Amino acid sequence: CISQDIDHILEMQSALAVDLGGTNLRVAIVSMKGKLVKKYTQPNPKTFEERIEVILSMCKQAIADAVHQNCRVLGVGVSTGGRVNPKEGVVLDSTKLIREWAGVNVRTPVSSALHLPVWVDNDGNCAALAEKKFGHGKGMENFVTVITGTGIGGGIIQHGELIHGSTFCAAELGHIMVALEGPECSCGSHGCIEAFASGLALQREAKRLHDEDLLLVEGMSVSNKEQVNAADLIHAAHLGNSKAEAVLHTAGTALGVGIVNILHTVNPSLVVLSGILAKHYEGPVCQVIRQRALSSARDIRVVTSDLEEPALLGAASMVLDYATRRTY
Amino acid sequence: CISQDIDHILEMQSALAVDLGGTNLRVAIVSMKGKLVKKYTQPNPKTFEERIEVILSMCKQAIADAVHQNCRVLGVGVSTGGRVNPKEGVVLDSTKLIREWAGVNVRTPVSSALHLPVWVDNDGNCAALAEKKFGHGKGMENFVTVITGTGIGGGIIQHGELIHGSTFCAAELGHIMVALEGPECSCGSHGCIEAFASGLALQREAKRLHDEDLLLVEGMSVSNKEQVNAADLIHAAHLGNSKAEAVLHTAGTALGVGIVNILHTVNPSLVVLSGILAKHYEGPVCQVIRQRALSSARDIRVVTSDLEEPALLGAASMVLDYATRRTY
Ligand SMILES: [Ca+2]
Ligand SMILES: [Ca+2]
Ligand SMILES: [Zn+2]
Ligand SMILES: [Zn+2]
Repeated sequence: CISQDIDHILEMQSALAVDLGGTNLRVAIVSMKGKLVKKYTQPNPKTFEERIEVILSMCKQAIADAVHQNCRVLGVGVSTGGRVNPKEGVVLDSTKLIREWAGVNVRTPVSSALHLPVWVDNDGNCAALAEKKFGHGKGMENFVTVITGTGIGGGIIQHGELIHGSTFCAAELGHIMVALEGPECSCGSHGCIEAFASGLALQREAKRLHDEDLLLVEGMSVSNKEQVNAADLIHAAHLGNSKAEAVLHTAGTALGVGIVNILHTVNPSLVVLSGILAKHYEGPVCQVIRQRALSSARDIRVVTSDLEEPALLGAASMVLDYATRRTY
Repeated sequence: CISQDIDHILEMQSALAVDLGGTNLRVAIVSMKGKLVKKYTQPNPKTFEERIEVILSMCKQAIADAVHQNCRVLGVGVSTGGRVNPKEGVVLDSTKLIREWAGVNVRTPVSSALHLPVWVDNDGNCAALAEKKFGHGKGMENFVTVITGTGIGGGIIQHGELIHGSTFCAAELGHIMVALEGPECSCGSHGCIEAFASGLALQREAKRLHDEDLLLVEGMSVSNKEQVNAADLIHAAHLGNSKAEAVLHTAGTALGVGIVNILHTVNPSLVVLSGILAKHYEGPVCQVIRQRALSSARDIRVVTSDLEEPALLGAASMVLDYATRRTY
């Protein structure tokens, strides 16, 4: 029957998603319904030339494999750390973790080599797009995603669209400051929520406690001091280490206050917490909202993302949504 | 000549602007070019019924006077403290300073009595609309206004329009928090920029210093302790009182950090500082931006408003812009 045929054709339409992180370069074939058909991972090279070369060879492999998976690739979506001009497909500047990645036109070389349209955006923005297409943000006009991983990023959807701001640095949510002084941040400022509540911030505090012989409690061991991390801190707190609890309490309060600041600025109807630490922070964030948000902003819904791969899914969603619009 | 006639007709089109503050209720006839043709002031009554009655009698007077001024009144714009649903013309809730002013439909009684269309919005949002039509925001797609007076308010213009948010509490900029602890705020939270940098916050600190005999320096006198205010604090700092300087430094830093948080969230191309303390804060805010904003957000333009009456002009601008659109 015809409607089944159409379903079948839609099912076949797919995107190549590229995720450029500090450590890895990943590519995936993603179906219209958000299925990760196949994933590829390589270390992210340290130079621009090698990076573009690896992206192209991984994408070519994925395109070849897509044929066998009966997937028609509509285009390439790229999620990357750093600040992006999505109109031009250019990475304007980046974190220290991705070298030689400033003032780089990603679209042109990828599009020319693969003969496919290419979209590029910031990883936090891609995470928001992923929620909008496949996650808790489906059908939502105004929502915010905050990703707590190694760092803290995010994206803001207003009237159904990402906001990029006048110089493409809207939704740099990790650098919302919640202390006049406070811990130093990778951005050069201090008191940012990233400096309080990111994976790196928790690791810094875990190491500090370990240095002072204050981290380990009965039933815990850490083989290598250099490997002490956020998970150990959370573990210690669960085992009753009050110093570890205090660090996590401050981190949760800082993240919560940062999120209340977002509520009082753009007043979304939903906050999606994403990233490895999301589940851990959901409770503390809700508590801070109850205590410190204006009563009119307090009824916000806060949820933890269900998506396994927000960056890849968001990168794919640009292709899947925009390829049919035929505009960049 | 015909073009002069048209100029003449445009000149005549005007708005009634109503400004509902904690102390006063003001009405003005405002021309298309932003001239305040005539102003009226009354104390703001304490009850809903009296307030509506006074608004109507002042507006009727203004309408009568407008005829003699050769002004054609297109409608009524109302600027009010509190949270507003501008689609419905309803004040949802308000500050403690305006009593019996929650869940109030302002549009219907005013429109029915005067047979004119009525627009209503929050005073901070009106200040932003005033900048957009008559001030530094002319022709700007993305900018933010922060008003530092008795309290702190603001408005955010994105893509040429105010953002109101999902529950009409976007741009509650006074309640951006910049400290995990910090001074108590009128909103029930603590560490808000309003609690650090508003006129009331500076007055609180001036009184505290005066109580401790630390405010007055040579060449200064304060007749009545209860009248000690922000101006005395600024005066003392100018005369070299280091305690007063420290208070103002903290206030300026707090306001600056709050504004950087706005930059990292919506990334406007302009910040307009408005209200009686604007000029005083321009320097400190610029300094904090240089020190603590992301490099990509640092080139923001920060200016002090030139407008004498932002709330009235913004209220008028809703009429002058929307009356021709014929939509609420
Ligand atoms: Ca972002
Ligand atoms: Ca406002
Ligand atoms: Zn930072
Ligand atoms: Zn507050």
